[in-house]
Amino acid sequence: MANPGALMAAEIAEQPEAWRRLLTESREQIQVAALRIADYQPRFVLFVARGTSDHAALYAKYLTEIVHQLPAGLVSPSTMTTYGARPDLRQTLMIGVSQSGGSPDLIQSLQVARDCGALTLAVTNQPSSPLAEAAELDVDILAGEERAVAATKSYTTQLLALYLLLDAVRGGDGSAMAGLPDQASKIIDDNDHFVRLAERYRFASRLVSTGRGYSYPTAREAALKLMETSYLSAQAFSGADLLHGPLAMIDRQVPVLATINGGSGGEAMRPVLSRLRDLGADVCCVGAADAVKAASAGYALPGEIAEEVSPLLEIIPFQLLSLHLAIARGSDPDAPRGLAKVTETL
Amino acid sequence: MANPGALMAAEIAEQPEAWRRLLTESREQIQVAALRIADYQPRFVLFVARGTSDHAALYAKYLTEIVHQLPAGLVSPSTMTTYGARPDLRQTLMIGVSQSGGSPDLIQSLQVARDCGALTLAVTNQPSSPLAEAAELDVDILAGEERAVAATKSYTTQLLALYLLLDAVRGGDGSAMAGLPDQASKIIDDNDHFVRLAERYRFASRLVSTGRGYSYPTAREAALKLMETSYLSAQAFSGADLLHGPLAMIDRQVPVLATINGGSGGEAMRPVLSRLRDLGADVCCVGAADAVKAASAGYALPGEIAEEVSPLLEIIPFQLLSLHLAIARGSDPDAPRGLAKVTETL
Repeated sequence: MANPGALMAAEIAEQPEAWRRLLTESREQIQVAALRIADYQPRFVLFVARGTSDHAALYAKYLTEIVHQLPAGLVSPSTMTTYGARPDLRQTLMIGVSQSGGSPDLIQSLQVARDCGALTLAVTNQPSSPLAEAAELDVDILAGEERAVAATKSYTTQLLALYLLLDAVRGGDGSAMAGLPDQASKIIDDNDHFVRLAERYRFASRLVSTGRGYSYPTAREAALKLMETSYLSAQAFSGADLLHGPLAMIDRQVPVLATINGGSGGEAMRPVLSRLRDLGADVCCVGAADAVKAASAGYALPGEIAEEVSPLLEIIPFQLLSLHLAIARGSDPDAPRGLAKVTETL
Repeated sequence: MANPGALMAAEIAEQPEAWRRLLTESREQIQVAALRIADYQPRFVLFVARGTSDHAALYAKYLTEIVHQLPAGLVSPSTMTTYGARPDLRQTLMIGVSQSGGSPDLIQSLQVARDCGALTLAVTNQPSSPLAEAAELDVDILAGEERAVAATKSYTTQLLALYLLLDAVRGGDGSAMAGLPDQASKIIDDNDHFVRLAERYRFASRLVSTGRGYSYPTAREAALKLMETSYLSAQAFSGADLLHGPLAMIDRQVPVLATINGGSGGEAMRPVLSRLRDLGADVCCVGAADAVKAASAGYALPGEIAEEVSPLLEIIPFQLLSLHLAIARGSDPDAPRGLAKVTETL
C-alpha cells in the first residue's frame, strides 16, 4: 500500500466532472425513459437495490413520495428470489439501481417484475450489464470505471441520474442542478479540513449518523462509508427513529454525525439536536451553517441549495472523512478487508 | 433499582398468555377488518410505524409481498408530515402500527392517507387512542398494559395480530398459530440458559445482528433491544446487505447474532454463515438446530415451525439475552437512560 486511498481520493475528486458529463450527455436517454414513464402513468413506484445503491434508491423514494405524490416502496429482493413471489405489478414502475448491474438477485427481481406487468428501468454504470438488459428502459450514470471498492462517484451520479429522470417525468430540465458541480469542487478543495477532522475520530470505535427526510439517505451512506473503510461500527437512524430507543446508547464516548439540510428535513432535526445537546453528546454537523457553528465540529455547506438536491453535496464531506479516517487509522480504503467490488447475492 | 429488569422479565413471561388471549378474543374484530379489506381489494399496501413497531410492520410487509403477492412499502412519515405530501392512495391499504397509538406523526400520516383515498387501519394496544380513532379500521393487540420501556409483549402481539389479519383476508383461521404459545413457554422456561449466554457478551461494546427474509425483522428487533437495554452498538443487516460492505467491520472482537429459520430465509443465510466462518467471526445462532450446533453459541428452536410464523418465537431468546445482559452489565433495563415509554415525534 504505497499510496493508501489513492483510488478513492481520485474518484471523490472526479465527481464534479462526472456530474457535468451526466448533465450534458444524458439528456436524450433520460428524455426517452421519462416520456415512456409519463405515458405509462405509474400508480406505484418500487425500487430494488443493495448497499450504496440502496441509499440512492431511498433518496429517489423521497422524491417520488414528495414531488410526484406517488406511494413508493423499497423491495426486499428475497421476496421475488428466495420466496418466489409473483406480485401483481400492473401500473407499477420498478427501478433497479446498481453500479455494476451484475448482482443476480437484482437481475432476477427486475425480470420477475417485468413478467408481472411492471414497467422496468435499470440505473447502472454499465449499459451492457445483465441488469440493463433485463429492464425495458435503462439509464447510464456515465460515472466512468469505478475502481475503488468504496463507491463514491457512482453514488452521487446515481443520485443525479435519478433526480434528472424524475424531474424529466414532470417536464423539468434539471436546471436546479446547474450550479452543483462548482459547489462540489469547493468542498473537495477543502480537503485539508477533513484530514484534520479525521484526527478527532482516530480512536472512536463506534458512532451514530443521523438525518431526516432528504438527508436520511446521506446519514445511511455516511455510516456505510465509515464502516467499509475504517471498520468502526457506524449506525444510521432517522432523527425520529433515534428518539425511539437508540438514544439510550449515546453518551459522550459515542460521537454523532448529523446532516442538517437547509430545508424542512433540517428543521425537523432541531429537536433531535437539542436532545443530543442535553445528553452532552459530541456532534459533528454537516450542512446548515448555524447548526455547524453550534456543534462540536463539522462542515458548513452553501446555504442556497434546494433541499431536494442537497444530498449530492452533503455526502462529499463524509466521503472525505471516511478516506482520511481510514488512512489515519493505518488502513488502505482501497483494499478494505473482506470486500470485493461486485457483490453477488442470490 | 431494587429488582432490575423485573418489569421486562414479567412482560416477556406474559407473552404466551397474551398470545392465547389474542387468538381467542380477537376473532371478531379481525374478521370485521379482514372482510372490509377483502371487499376493498387493495392493489398496494403501505405501513407506517417507528421503533419496535416498525419491525412488526416489516414482518407484515414480507407477508404481504410473499403470501398476498401485493407490492408493499414502508412509508417515511416525514413525507406526509414535514413535507406535506398528499399522494394518490386510491386502492391502497395503509396500516399504522403503534403500541401507544399516540405518536403525532403516525396519527397525521393515517389522517392524510384517509383523505387521499386509502383504506386505513390501526394496529395498537390502545383501542381508544388517537391513532385508532384516525383510522377507519382498528385491531387491538390485547397485550395488556406494557410498563417496561423496552417493548416485548407488544411486539409479538403485533406480529400475531398482523399475521391473523392478513391470514383472515385470505380466508384463513390462524390455525398455524395454535401451538405457538406452548412453544414460547418452553423458551421462557429456559431462562437460565440466557443468564449464562449473557455472560459471554458482558464486555462486548458492539455487535452485528443478521437474518434474511422473514427473519430479517427479528435481526432488526434483536439489535434494537440490545441497544435500548445494554447500551452497546448493535447493528442489523439483512444477510445479503451484510456482504455489500459492512462485512469489513467484522472481526473476532465483533460478535454476530444470526437468526437462521428453518425455511427459505434460513437457507439463504447459509452462504453468509460460511463467509463469517472464513473470517473467524464469533457467531451466536438462534433457530435451526444444525446451524446452532455449528456456531460458537446459540439457542435451537423447535424444527417444525412454519417459517412465516417463526418470527414470534425467534425474538424471545433475544429478549431474554437483552434482559440478562443489561443486568449483568449493572444497568436496569426497566429504566434505560434517555428514553420514555411513549415517544412523540412530529
